[in-house]
Amino acid sequence: MNDNLLIKIPPRKSKSIFLEKNQKIKIINTHGTQVVDTWCFNQADIKEFMSMEHNRAVTSSIFPKEGEFLYTNKRQPILYILKDSSPGRHDTLIAACDTYRYKMLGCEEYHDNCTDNLMNTLDNLGFKSIECPSPLNLWMNIPVNIDGEVTFSPPLSTKNDYIIFEAKMDCILIMSVCPMDIVPINGEECIIKEIHYQLLSD
Amino acid sequence: MNDNLLIKIPPRKSKSIFLEKNQKIKIINTHGTQVVDTWCFNQADIKEFMSMEHNRAVTSSIFPKEGEFLYTNKRQPILYILKDSSPGRHDTLIAACDTYRYKMLGCEEYHDNCTDNLMNTLDNLGFKSIECPSPLNLWMNIPVNIDGEVTFSPPLSTKNDYIIFEAKMDCILIMSVCPMDIVPINGEECIIKEIHYQLLSD
Repeated sequence: MNDNLLIKIPPRKSKSIFLEKNQKIKIINTHGTQVVDTWCFNQADIKEFMSMEHNRAVTSSIFPKEGEFLYTNKRQPILYILKDSSPGRHDTLIAACDTYRYKMLGCEEYHDNCTDNLMNTLDNLGFKSIECPSPLNLWMNIPVNIDGEVTFSPPLSTKNDYIIFEAKMDCILIMSVCPMDIVPINGEECIIKEIHYQLLSD
Repeated sequence: MNDNLLIKIPPRKSKSIFLEKNQKIKIINTHGTQVVDTWCFNQADIKEFMSMEHNRAVTSSIFPKEGEFLYTNKRQPILYILKDSSPGRHDTLIAACDTYRYKMLGCEEYHDNCTDNLMNTLDNLGFKSIECPSPLNLWMNIPVNIDGEVTFSPPLSTKNDYIIFEAKMDCILIMSVCPMDIVPINGEECIIKEIHYQLLSD
């Protein structure tokens, strides 16, 4: 596979990418500590999208792994995980951050958030009134203990860890560079950092 | 609290109940082995509903417990768990069963399912085109091991175990007596059984 242009997504920002079936994209955790909230919609039917609750049921796991598909709310494969260089701890349990989350954490003014990033991106694409699906939170490290308690922990990934997805249908991939700087999901320093991606050619 | 009329929900069927703020409902696992997919919507805004992914983020747990609230996609309390007589293993991870699930399990003909139960119920109430939120699956026992693998196991509840919810806003509670009879979430025998509920008076 040849590498195409490396494209940056700045801290706190989002980006939508139209992928054709079989097209591949490499998403790079440039600094190693950044969580990326990720959604994927069927281009032909925006009401079909990658769904964490359906995915867990199909794969019998809370962690998506290299060599596995990611499934939609119609239980169809929409992405395939061709390669994951990280320890494979990506979160499927936690909702995208939103204005309500930041208010609960004590923010009195507007805080950038992944839900608005998604909704604004969909809005710009001409899609309205769609609920925010539960995201695949790339590199977000949320251990679950035997009692079911979850912990918001720093990523286990390191600099330039990457994941390669192959589209299994024509789809729209949307990534949000998570602006959470209060709990340490984006590293102990709570500093939001840019990530990069590139489309791959066979 | 006085007990009002005990009402049956037959196997594979669903029921919607309008609850006023502070109203209490007791849901009874009459035979002890039955899973009940449960949703709850804000009466004033059907786009606000009990959301498992938001709930896990607010409570830092995959298991809702007695003495805790259940939260909406706006991170507002919609239900309070006043009492839970069971060992407290209710699932928040797995999507409602649907036609796609039963096809994957080998069903060639239509199989009753919780997603259609919800959508038909909403339809009858005059609500259209709403996605099926990830349900609170009462008594559904889905252990998660240290590697993140989930198992579809029989309930830990026993005959007449019950849960009491108190509404924290005017809401619509929808329950579906899960028709899954292929994997043993409704007991090793895979026989779907009726449940009961009653509205409680202070």
